[in-house]
Amino acid sequence: MANVWSANANFKDGQLALCGIPAQQLAAEFGTPTFFLDEKDFRDRAAAWSRALNDSFGKDAGTVYYAGKAFICVEVARWVEQAGIGLDVCTGGELAVALAAKFPPSKIQVHGNNKSVAEITRAVEIGVATIVVDSLFEIERIAAAAKKAGKVQAVLLRLTPGIEAHTHESIATAHEDVKFGFSIASGAAWEAVLAVRKHSEIELRGFHGHIGSQILSMDAFEVAADRLIALLGQYRDEFGAELPELDLGGGYGISYLPTDEPLSPSVAIGALAVAVHAACKKYNLGVPKISIEPGRAIVGPAMFTLYEVGTTKNVVLESGATRNYVSVDGGMSDNIRTSLYGAEYIAVIANRTSTSESRSSRVVGKHCETGDIVIRNIDLPGDISPGDLLAVPATGAYGRSMASNYNHVARPPVVAVIDGKARVILRRESEADLLGLDV
Amino acid sequence: MANVWSANANFKDGQLALCGIPAQQLAAEFGTPTFFLDEKDFRDRAAAWSRALNDSFGKDAGTVYYAGKAFICVEVARWVEQAGIGLDVCTGGELAVALAAKFPPSKIQVHGNNKSVAEITRAVEIGVATIVVDSLFEIERIAAAAKKAGKVQAVLLRLTPGIEAHTHESIATAHEDVKFGFSIASGAAWEAVLAVRKHSEIELRGFHGHIGSQILSMDAFEVAADRLIALLGQYRDEFGAELPELDLGGGYGISYLPTDEPLSPSVAIGALAVAVHAACKKYNLGVPKISIEPGRAIVGPAMFTLYEVGTTKNVVLESGATRNYVSVDGGMSDNIRTSLYGAEYIAVIANRTSTSESRSSRVVGKHCETGDIVIRNIDLPGDISPGDLLAVPATGAYGRSMASNYNHVARPPVVAVIDGKARVILRRESEADLLGLDV
Repeated sequence: MANVWSANANFKDGQLALCGIPAQQLAAEFGTPTFFLDEKDFRDRAAAWSRALNDSFGKDAGTVYYAGKAFICVEVARWVEQAGIGLDVCTGGELAVALAAKFPPSKIQVHGNNKSVAEITRAVEIGVATIVVDSLFEIERIAAAAKKAGKVQAVLLRLTPGIEAHTHESIATAHEDVKFGFSIASGAAWEAVLAVRKHSEIELRGFHGHIGSQILSMDAFEVAADRLIALLGQYRDEFGAELPELDLGGGYGISYLPTDEPLSPSVAIGALAVAVHAACKKYNLGVPKISIEPGRAIVGPAMFTLYEVGTTKNVVLESGATRNYVSVDGGMSDNIRTSLYGAEYIAVIANRTSTSESRSSRVVGKHCETGDIVIRNIDLPGDISPGDLLAVPATGAYGRSMASNYNHVARPPVVAVIDGKARVILRRESEADLLGLDV
Repeated sequence: MANVWSANANFKDGQLALCGIPAQQLAAEFGTPTFFLDEKDFRDRAAAWSRALNDSFGKDAGTVYYAGKAFICVEVARWVEQAGIGLDVCTGGELAVALAAKFPPSKIQVHGNNKSVAEITRAVEIGVATIVVDSLFEIERIAAAAKKAGKVQAVLLRLTPGIEAHTHESIATAHEDVKFGFSIASGAAWEAVLAVRKHSEIELRGFHGHIGSQILSMDAFEVAADRLIALLGQYRDEFGAELPELDLGGGYGISYLPTDEPLSPSVAIGALAVAVHAACKKYNLGVPKISIEPGRAIVGPAMFTLYEVGTTKNVVLESGATRNYVSVDGGMSDNIRTSLYGAEYIAVIANRTSTSESRSSRVVGKHCETGDIVIRNIDLPGDISPGDLLAVPATGAYGRSMASNYNHVARPPVVAVIDGKARVILRRESEADLLGLDV
């Protein structure tokens, strides 16, 4: 069974503690709901991916880019820099966070299927490492911005290698019905190669592929690597030069449930290295600098959400069985993944042990909506009561980052905990904040 | 075919205009993406529901409560007050908006399955009209707050009448597997009646039932009314007094697609009146004051979203057909309904006519996520290009209200337009706002 908690979370006398601070104390000091972020765990995971890349690829290692979309704030951007890794941003807003953290532009990669001219211009001006190109229009926009800035902008082309991977299953199709990238199979990828080469203001450094999310096995990565490297071979054949970089994206899965067994960084990247080396040999290429983009795999397991239970209600189902509805003081505004993707989580009573028999339960939020569900099906102790604290692990990725103010519910803070000390790094919204845009 | 646009939106020389202001002018002045709200249309719809209730129920008419969860801001709360109708809030945050608009508490109804003690205390203190009770715990909390405030708080009990209605289909089951309310069938409703009657600080005014969302026919409302009125009869039989109020909730549907034919307020409430009168006769009761809670039906059709197209991309599908991916400058951060519920919308090029042949298209946003889709399947002119304005109608409800900052995308403003004049009522977020919670 996998551990769904961060490294420095544990249970003492039945109470959850993070870095030695009991959940009850965290709730008393910071209120609920709150995201608690295990800072050392985050830093260690970032370091582990970096080490895995360097161990597996040595001098051919490129950059680990932390995918900011999973969760980013100014303080976390500082940690990313301190880890010595890069940052992947996909909007001007994420770039603004990076700049507020004084993140070096030379270690920033810019993504996005529809970057605005303003976003491109700013990225070029500040000197980001790489722009990952997603459409033919964008090639012209980057060239114009680089020309205006008197620069040569390094780019990768985002390609769709015809593989889609989700968790356990992966599908390899000839084409991909997605908004991202240039299809290799349709010839769009090659067309983009030719288009980029027309611009002296753009330096094509290589290709980029991203095949999915929450992936728990390596087979799809291996097929994707082979297809992307095949195109590097075609490029070499056509132009007599090897492109120096290949970004194989992110998508590495984590444990939401104890039955989700993720790959460790060393195992995942070790397997990737075998596939990359085999493909490079097959196409008679040197190994390019290999970059990866873990986001969820770094921040996901490092955070849990702490809620307070407000009500419970036993509802009689049609079968005659009952379901205990446990309402918490947050919900779909701080975790939309359950209703959006059917995502699954576990939860535990964080403030005490219970020997009460467990009951078929559903954890719901406080929103005025039937679909406002945090955990659809879970067995929880029958004595769970208002005032109990409920902790949901593995909420670091796409929890706070996708949070809304639906029903004018204030978004929860993120509290970093390390060495027995807890501090707010993203504060809770206030009533004034909720009214701050009214004119 | 139903009209999916608000009353004062029309097309002149192929260009969309709102209250006479062309889309291009609106985009130039306010930027994109922006929600444009047809103020007169909103006011007229609010008035139409109020009139329908009064016409159909006369002296037995209760209150039309505008369901703030659909969309509320301070200025809109003022319009609701000026329409002479009530306001339904479901959190302390929505209550704060109402109070900032100086909305009279005596016309506010408070909903929510998990109201906090603080929310209940504040509601009682300021003297809201009604609290709709959703759990046994809440009865104790309201009694305590009322006692402390030296008041008697009027309440309704939210009941689940065992009917679920969605759009065209309705399901009547013995029990309901939802977090809201007290089940009539299981006996929970009667238990709540007895619990409320123990408290002299609480005045039970009647029952409340809400059966679903985006409902386009009245049969489910009629069954629900009968079941709720049957319980009013049981109450009279047991206690020798008739409860004076019945709130039959909201859920009245609108046209998202021209094929969605919603009921007019007069037809809907006329049918409701027939059912209510029949049920009251059947159970030998006087007709109670009937309240309703339209939200989407007032604000939904009154707003459209104006986007600018950033890129287009023809993707070859497995069948050999192509799909034109049209990327706009917003997406799942300003409209999560498509990915969350599979909601459907139409869109039109707003800045020009096109005689180009239409193409199978998909409107997508700028987020770093494959599921970031605004309209999954739509035929759009093949010459749609970057710089074109794309308008999506009927986005007033659960668009801006569920908006997020996913990918640190700033949330769009809401611009009210009336009598040829446009003004911002909820401003666009700035980069400074996006960084405002970082500490």
